[in-house]
Amino acid sequence: QYSTGVRKVTLIPGHGIGPEITVAVQKIFEAAKVPIEWDEVDVTAVRGPDGKFGIPQKAIDSVNANKIGLKGPLMTPVGKGYRSLNLALRKEFDLYANVRPCKSLDGIKTLYDNVDVVTIRENTEGEYSGIEHEIVDGVVQSIKLITEEASKRVAEFAFQFARDNKRKKVTAVHKANIMRMSDGLFLRCCRELATKYPDIKFEERYLDTVCLNMVQDPSKFDVLVMPNLYGDIMSDMCSGLVGGLGLTPSGNIGKNGALFESVHGTAPAIAGQDKANPTALLLSAVMMLRHVSLPEHADNIERACFHVLREGKVLTEDLGGRSTCTEYTNEIIVHGTAPD
Amino acid sequence: QYSTGVRKVTLIPGHGIGPEITVAVQKIFEAAKVPIEWDEVDVTAVRGPDGKFGIPQKAIDSVNANKIGLKGPLMTPVGKGYRSLNLALRKEFDLYANVRPCKSLDGIKTLYDNVDVVTIRENTEGEYSGIEHEIVDGVVQSIKLITEEASKRVAEFAFQFARDNKRKKVTAVHKANIMRMSDGLFLRCCRELATKYPDIKFEERYLDTVCLNMVQDPSKFDVLVMPNLYGDIMSDMCSGLVGGLGLTPSGNIGKNGALFESVHGTAPAIAGQDKANPTALLLSAVMMLRHVSLPEHADNIERACFHVLREGKVLTEDLGGRSTCTEYTNEIIVHGTAPD
Ligand SMILES: CC(C)[C@H](C(=O)O)[C@@H](O)C(=O)O
Ligand SMILES: CC(C)[C@H](C(=O)O)[C@@H](O)C(=O)O
Repeated sequence: QYSTGVRKVTLIPGHGIGPEITVAVQKIFEAAKVPIEWDEVDVTAVRGPDGKFGIPQKAIDSVNANKIGLKGPLMTPVGKGYRSLNLALRKEFDLYANVRPCKSLDGIKTLYDNVDVVTIRENTEGEYSGIEHEIVDGVVQSIKLITEEASKRVAEFAFQFARDNKRKKVTAVHKANIMRMSDGLFLRCCRELATKYPDIKFEERYLDTVCLNMVQDPSKFDVLVMPNLYGDIMSDMCSGLVGGLGLTPSGNIGKNGALFESVHGTAPAIAGQDKANPTALLLSAVMMLRHVSLPEHADNIERACFHVLREGKVLTEDLGGRSTCTEYTNEIIVHGTAPD
Repeated sequence: QYSTGVRKVTLIPGHGIGPEITVAVQKIFEAAKVPIEWDEVDVTAVRGPDGKFGIPQKAIDSVNANKIGLKGPLMTPVGKGYRSLNLALRKEFDLYANVRPCKSLDGIKTLYDNVDVVTIRENTEGEYSGIEHEIVDGVVQSIKLITEEASKRVAEFAFQFARDNKRKKVTAVHKANIMRMSDGLFLRCCRELATKYPDIKFEERYLDTVCLNMVQDPSKFDVLVMPNLYGDIMSDMCSGLVGGLGLTPSGNIGKNGALFESVHGTAPAIAGQDKANPTALLLSAVMMLRHVSLPEHADNIERACFHVLREGKVLTEDLGGRSTCTEYTNEIIVHGTAPD
């Protein structure tokens, strides 16, 4: 699927702390001699010919050409006519599976120490269809759209992901007791795919029950697959269990491309002050390396990052440390090739 | 609103462990000399004249007459034509606000010790509208219905609840960045009501962010108000933080009636063995006592229950104890009038 040699990757630094954490990742990749060439593009909302705001054409062309991208946080201006650029990107490239691994990290103290889950979120439809109407004054309907096609492909993705990553179980998360037809269809697709992956255990659970069980004992779960909104919730919740969005990576995978991104905000309050924590973007970049079949580079960089977090000597302020983004980055580089 | 003297309350023991935990509550109430007369009715699905299964008329008449009910868990038979009887009851009596307080309990060890939140869930519409269509083969839509009327009344309920209970803050939980029209309407209603309660702090937060923050630091939250499905999720999650559905009460409040219920399941595996934990139903009954203006009785019973949990000597098996439901019940009765 990917040519050998140097890979060209679209790089979207984004806004706020985006550029700083992007530079951090670039420095670490350079030091680790990762065979990647960056194609940097700006994604600031531009007004299209239809008057609506959207992604600049240059960025679209770049992702279409490279098929792989890494992106920092984007700011969506508030106001009429603006829609989230994060969502626009997922839609534009039909990135149908959103993958967010959440694993307890040595050195990051939270209430939990046994989290190791991966949420796989349908990324193109569901509650995010964007179809809404005001029927009469004061009565609004939003449409949750579930299709067999999208449900099957994300279910298949989840089972294949589980197999490829030597995971044992896939849990389908749903409210088919309430949304019998829509979540019912999603669930049937998961059941059907489950029969094709007899090596992976399959279970189905209500969303509310999963929320309850997850905060009590996350070790009950492994890979979870679910409709769009449920994935939005569960992935943030699981991220909270291991330290928050500053530490957890994310990948949006499609048939013809993939975009890896940190899902925290632009943090304007600390932007430009060399205080940002680049970990989420770095670990997203590590996911990307595995995706483009550079697993050794991925393993090395991840190990160095985990080492620095575990040692806890050079940490950014959000983690209770006193170091700058640059110092943290350099510390990772120092450990980049050292044995663990 | 309520006559003085003896109150008549509809009692729905329910299925599985329902009858046992109901007897426990009745015994405690009797020992505490609560001026309540029970009107016991069965709610097992019956086939109506239209061929559909629903609530028996006798139960409906009883709730309509008494305006107040206490109910144990109901079993909904699986299969076509059956809908959850729990939901049917909420709908039948237009019980528009679902109130679930979750507070850390002394003696119940969880990862958290600082939880004190109340989720207030819109209980009649939203994702629970029941309106779904298959547009074409393999394409289903479910309709989330948000009305100004239902949003305003639940928002007003939340602010009034906060004021009555000396709470400081109401957080509106939403995804108006995605469902701009429906959640947008809900949010506008909350904002409008907020202006009428200047003594209560108001904030609005994204659902995913609330999930993340809640597992990291529940003390950030106080009263939360939200559309139906979000409330279903958040209330279970918060319940998980303090020990689970066996310990947390629930009330469904409407203009012309209120139904208090334990929201755990029927636990068929232990039914009839005197092993069930009646705490959730008892604390729901305590909420009911406050609702019918019997706060002293509520305080006494609650204090006795908390005392027994804190001592930890007589606990049911689900809490790691070795006592029966009867022994636990008697222990509460023993402490029922003793000073704390
Ligand atoms: C920024 C927002 C539109 C987005 C979402 O709701 O999907 C975010 O919460 C996420 O999870 O990536
Ligand atoms: C039993 C089920 C239909 C119900 C719901 O989804 O509301 C339950 O989860 C609850 O929270 O009371």
